[in-house]
Amino acid sequence: MSEKQYVSYGSAKTCSPDVAAREITGCRFSIAPMSDNFVDILLSALKQVDTSKLWSGTDALSTVYRGKNRHVVDALKACFIHAVQAGQGVHTTMEATFSRGCPGDTAADYTMTVSDEAVNEAAVSDIHFPVLCKIALYPMGVENYMEYIAAVVNRAIDLGIYEGTAHYCTVLRCDVQSLFAYFEEVNNYCAEHVSHYVLEASLSVNSPSERSTQ
Amino acid sequence: MSEKQYVSYGSAKTCSPDVAAREITGCRFSIAPMSDNFVDILLSALKQVDTSKLWSGTDALSTVYRGKNRHVVDALKACFIHAVQAGQGVHTTMEATFSRGCPGDTAADYTMTVSDEAVNEAAVSDIHFPVLCKIALYPMGVENYMEYIAAVVNRAIDLGIYEGTAHYCTVLRCDVQSLFAYFEEVNNYCAEHVSHYVLEASLSVNSPSERSTQ
Repeated sequence: MSEKQYVSYGSAKTCSPDVAAREITGCRFSIAPMSDNFVDILLSALKQVDTSKLWSGTDALSTVYRGKNRHVVDALKACFIHAVQAGQGVHTTMEATFSRGCPGDTAADYTMTVSDEAVNEAAVSDIHFPVLCKIALYPMGVENYMEYIAAVVNRAIDLGIYEGTAHYCTVLRCDVQSLFAYFEEVNNYCAEHVSHYVLEASLSVNSPSERSTQ
Repeated sequence: MSEKQYVSYGSAKTCSPDVAAREITGCRFSIAPMSDNFVDILLSALKQVDTSKLWSGTDALSTVYRGKNRHVVDALKACFIHAVQAGQGVHTTMEATFSRGCPGDTAADYTMTVSDEAVNEAAVSDIHFPVLCKIALYPMGVENYMEYIAAVVNRAIDLGIYEGTAHYCTVLRCDVQSLFAYFEEVNNYCAEHVSHYVLEASLSVNSPSERSTQ
C-alpha cells in the first residue's frame, strides 16, 4: 500500500531556520483585464516590467515577485500601470498577496543583494489615475493582531486615502501612486512589528459600477 | 480643528460581545470573466442565484454573502457555475474570501434562522468542469496556526484534489463540485477549531496558459 505524502509545517515558534528567508518580501498577484484582448494586455504588461532586481516566476494562476520590499512594490506598481495603460479604458482588477516571514518559507527564489534604487520608477512615476482598492491585513501568530490592523487602517486615514470599512475589508480610494507608496509603507511597518504577516489587496480601475455612481 | 475619526478594533481576546455574530459565515467574492461581455455574464450569474437563505450585498468591488456555511457555499458555487456557463468558454477567475469569527464583526447583515436545505443545489449539482485553484488559510490569534493549515492541506491530499505547494499558497485541481464540497468542509473544520479564521481561494477556468500545457 503506497503511503500518502502528507505535509507538516511545524510550529510558528520555531520559524524558518534560515534567517535569510525571513528577510524576503514576496507578492503573488493576478491581473484580470475584462476584455477579449486580455492575453495581449497581460503579456505586454509583464514584458515591460524590469525584474532585474527580483526573483520572478509566472505559473498558471499568478505571478510571484520575491526580493526587497522596495523592488517588489516597484515592479508590482509598474506591472499594474502597464496593464491599465495597455487596456485603454478596460475594466481591470488586480489581486495581490504580500507576505513576509512565513515559517514554511525557504531561502530560495529571491534576489536581495541589490541596491535600493527602484528600477521601474522612472517609467511610471508620472502616470496618475484613480484606483478603488480593498485591503485586509493578517498578522499571524499573535493574540493582539487587531491592534496592528487598526494601526495600518489609521495610517490610511492619516494619509486621506481611507474610504470606509466593509465586511471583511477596508476600502481605500486614491491615486495609483499614493496607493503603492502606502503598500510599501505597510510592508515596512509589518516587517518591523510582526514576524509573519499577509496583506491582501484587490485593486479595481475603470469599473462600470463605479462610473454609474459618479 | 476637526479631529480625524480613527478606528479601534479592540483585542481579539475580548472578541465580539455579540455571540450571534460569531456564528455567521461570510464570503466576499469577485468574479472576473475576461471578455468584452463581462457585465452581462456577471449580471446573469448573480441574478440566477437563489439568495433567499442569505444576506447578500453587492458593492463596487465585490459581492458579500452572510449566513450559514452551507448556504454561503451553496450560493457561491451556484454563482460561479452560472458565470462559467454564461461565459461559454471564456477564461474566468474568482477570488473568494471566507471568514468567520472576526472580533470586529457585528450581528447585522445576516440570515441564520433558516433550514439546512441548500436551495441552489438542484440547479447546479449535475454540472461538472475542472477548476484550478489556489487556497491560503489564515487562522488568527493563535501561535500554532501552521498546524491547522497543515491539517487542511492534508485533507486535500486525502481527497485527491491536491496539486502541490507554491509560494504563499496551496494549489488544488479538481471538479468544481469536489472543490466547493471541500470549502464547506474546511469552513466547518475551522469553525470548530479556531475562533477566527480567513480562507482565501482563487479559482480559474478556461485559462489559455492551462490549455497550452495540456
